[in-house]
Amino acid sequence: MNSIVIPNKQDVVEARALIEPYIHNTPVMSSSSINEIYGVELYLKCENFQKMGAFKMRGAAHAILKLSDEARAKGVTTHSSGNFAQALSLAAKSLGVKATIIMPTSAPKIKKNAVLGYGATVIDCAPTLQAREEAADKFVKETGATFIHPSNDMNVILGNSSAALELIDKMPDLDAVFAPIGGGGLIAGTCLACHYFGEIPVYGGEPSGADDAYHSLKEGRIIPPENPQTIADGLRTQLGDQNFPILQKHLKEILLVEEKEIVEYMRLIWERMKIIIEPSSAVAVAAVLKNKERFKGQKIGVIISGGNVDLNALPF
Amino acid sequence: MNSIVIPNKQDVVEARALIEPYIHNTPVMSSSSINEIYGVELYLKCENFQKMGAFKMRGAAHAILKLSDEARAKGVTTHSSGNFAQALSLAAKSLGVKATIIMPTSAPKIKKNAVLGYGATVIDCAPTLQAREEAADKFVKETGATFIHPSNDMNVILGNSSAALELIDKMPDLDAVFAPIGGGGLIAGTCLACHYFGEIPVYGGEPSGADDAYHSLKEGRIIPPENPQTIADGLRTQLGDQNFPILQKHLKEILLVEEKEIVEYMRLIWERMKIIIEPSSAVAVAAVLKNKERFKGQKIGVIISGGNVDLNALPF
Repeated sequence: MNSIVIPNKQDVVEARALIEPYIHNTPVMSSSSINEIYGVELYLKCENFQKMGAFKMRGAAHAILKLSDEARAKGVTTHSSGNFAQALSLAAKSLGVKATIIMPTSAPKIKKNAVLGYGATVIDCAPTLQAREEAADKFVKETGATFIHPSNDMNVILGNSSAALELIDKMPDLDAVFAPIGGGGLIAGTCLACHYFGEIPVYGGEPSGADDAYHSLKEGRIIPPENPQTIADGLRTQLGDQNFPILQKHLKEILLVEEKEIVEYMRLIWERMKIIIEPSSAVAVAAVLKNKERFKGQKIGVIISGGNVDLNALPF
Repeated sequence: MNSIVIPNKQDVVEARALIEPYIHNTPVMSSSSINEIYGVELYLKCENFQKMGAFKMRGAAHAILKLSDEARAKGVTTHSSGNFAQALSLAAKSLGVKATIIMPTSAPKIKKNAVLGYGATVIDCAPTLQAREEAADKFVKETGATFIHPSNDMNVILGNSSAALELIDKMPDLDAVFAPIGGGGLIAGTCLACHYFGEIPVYGGEPSGADDAYHSLKEGRIIPPENPQTIADGLRTQLGDQNFPILQKHLKEILLVEEKEIVEYMRLIWERMKIIIEPSSAVAVAAVLKNKERFKGQKIGVIISGGNVDLNALPF
């Protein structure tokens, strides 16, 4: 069994400095009307305004930047049908590196076109995890490309930590920070930044219909999601051996939210703040606001993971 | 016939200073992907992030601030079923002035509740312009309250001019500024700011289905809209004697847009920029981008009027 070395403060600082030229330092937004209604001071770190519309750009850029020149020359690959495919493609393009994305044939055409639009190559595979992994293995063996996992890669986690770090820069006196939990890459990075910069407690928001992280932390081992059912499509994935130890050590608590709450709080943010956040981000907002009595009067940061939603399939 | 005195530069400067404590200096946003696709540099002045979600807060606050103490003590009133009702209510609340809104019985309950939520009183009237005006006249006669028109009031126009002024502050080298044309209050204010601060040409965007301003300017007299048909519900109103002379003197041109273009460009902004803009704002964006060849390579400011949309009735 591998023993995981949790990155130190210097690693977090260096990651941020390394990716800074390739990402947006996204704004922190708040709403006086929401704060008044709920009695909690919310500060949203708006990664929906990040390049390609999600925080994933941070981890993707950092993972490529940490590669040797030799490795960069051989290109990078991942299997993803979601935001990370676009993030890796765009980061690779910015850095002059070739990206090849393994995508299930079931992926929406719009996502495939977005990846192609960023200049990446797409390899189609059958829509099963096994087919994806086999296709990726085969491609890596043939080309020497580096496989970069969307969430279970320490350099991806370190890149992601920069979102919370920027938030803390602007709001150094936060009482807590919330982020959604999917594959664990965002929440692990958030835990690192908040641990090293102020020991700010970090809470995860997770859908009741995909509560594998909740049970994993309770039982002390990674439990894969079984047929996860949630509108928060970015959170149907499972934790990995790289991020799990960070969560075990630094995550304060996971708060579960129901599907109707995800839609309710997504709508609240759209209507009151006029910004588009994806369901996964609404999970973190819901985790705070449904527990408003507990966090009454506190200054709470929320990492808004992204804003990539299908306007043809809105829940309202 | 009244002769209208067009406000001078000092009036514009003073209006901004007067309302500054009561409004947000909203951000200016741009999208590198949109700029790349269309070959135009767009700078959106995001009044969708203004208090109550629209620029109307500026004019409402200014009109109340210009009242004498005696007039303030007697309260303010307007007839509106839209954003201005909320704006006047909120501005009045901030300034400790009583607001009474004449609303048609056909107004959506959510809008009535918003007005009541800001502490204003609502007087119901039949859903005709005549009934509204009669109710307002009667109320003014009985109480001595000051009637404030949503768009055809010079102090409202001056308050509105501060949006363009803030935009020019941040982006002094704009080649042109666009705003939607409805009742004429926003575009007139925009014309004043752009005339006095850099002689920046101002263009109006107007729906083909509600092109009364286009014809009014062509014929040199105010032509009321006849059964206007457009999704841009804020633009179904008509010009007035206060704003029309400003447009005659300072508006460069009105560019018409079709209904499908309004929806297309509204969707573009939602998807690419992750911000919610109302159809009226999309009219101004469409007016630029459908004419991208004409404005190629130019730096164009667009006043995004607001972000108050009914999520239950989206056009996509």
